[in-house]
Amino acid sequence: MTAYDIPFGVEVDFETGAMEAADRVIVRRASGMRGYYADADALEQIISSGDPIHYRVYEKAIPEQEGHLLFCMSVLEPGRVGREFFFTKGHYHTVADTAETYLCIRGQGIMLMKTTDGRWAAESMRAGRMVYAPPFWAHRSINTGPEPLISFCVYPAHAGHNYGDIETEGFPKRVIYSPSGPSLADPASLC
Amino acid sequence: MTAYDIPFGVEVDFETGAMEAADRVIVRRASGMRGYYADADALEQIISSGDPIHYRVYEKAIPEQEGHLLFCMSVLEPGRVGREFFFTKGHYHTVADTAETYLCIRGQGIMLMKTTDGRWAAESMRAGRMVYAPPFWAHRSINTGPEPLISFCVYPAHAGHNYGDIETEGFPKRVIYSPSGPSLADPASLC
Repeated sequence: MTAYDIPFGVEVDFETGAMEAADRVIVRRASGMRGYYADADALEQIISSGDPIHYRVYEKAIPEQEGHLLFCMSVLEPGRVGREFFFTKGHYHTVADTAETYLCIRGQGIMLMKTTDGRWAAESMRAGRMVYAPPFWAHRSINTGPEPLISFCVYPAHAGHNYGDIETEGFPKRVIYSPSGPSLADPASLC
Repeated sequence: MTAYDIPFGVEVDFETGAMEAADRVIVRRASGMRGYYADADALEQIISSGDPIHYRVYEKAIPEQEGHLLFCMSVLEPGRVGREFFFTKGHYHTVADTAETYLCIRGQGIMLMKTTDGRWAAESMRAGRMVYAPPFWAHRSINTGPEPLISFCVYPAHAGHNYGDIETEGFPKRVIYSPSGPSLADPASLC
């Protein structure tokens, strides 16, 4: 029996994305994203100019057991590294056949998803849009707008996070700025 | 492989609670709530004056399999039956040790929860508040405000619904109107 086997409520702020009384706040700064963007020099410039926060994830320490649900608020800052919009690392689940739901509360962006066997998908994110990452699909959020991209996420508490081939392979598409709006580019085209 | 093993997104309306392209909309009218409220005569009056919708639940037809997540929008209308505020039937999960998360999008109310061994809990619901119903806890929403009570709900897709002792026993507390605000009453006090 833990404190999380008893009902509770938490306040979440739809403007800032903060979760009151979060047990964990994962803070990912620009320096934690080395190796992820095509333009490494542009990232180093951002790091040397104050190493700003890239994204934060607020969570409660729900037991990582089957039957429980982990939920979080994800806040991805707006910005670009070279031509690429800021993104989260993205992850598979360690228990690969577990899904995740995202309800976008504020901002606009894209959820990029992929499987280990080479399939990929992109879904738009904006306030009032919910995106489903089915079992087996790695998922990365990309903020293509001028505001923080704020989402409420839920996944089975035993799922775990696994970066798998993301650190070495990245995603099959990169989301870049163009004057006519965000567009999907092949990674090779940015090297 | 189903359509829900491929990523997708859906629009949800934070004002009305409607989910675009929902596969199922469960519509519970006043007549579907016979036996649930203390004041049966008051309920019959409501039924005979048009049998209005009590609540609606919008869902996608996610496969009811472990690893998937079922998500829904729940819209509970405002109103009273006698002194009691409108509520949902409430349910346990058939797979009892599965949790459910509620993110309240609009309105105000109370989530009443109980276990089969007699424990109970009440958590307030309002826009920007998230309530966690842990494994084994039956949960019922009560709308204590003047607007629809709208929540985004997520639970393991294999959980199932089980009314168990709710149809015969109800919940250990009823939420009633008083001039100073909603209050919890013992069921016996309303008979």
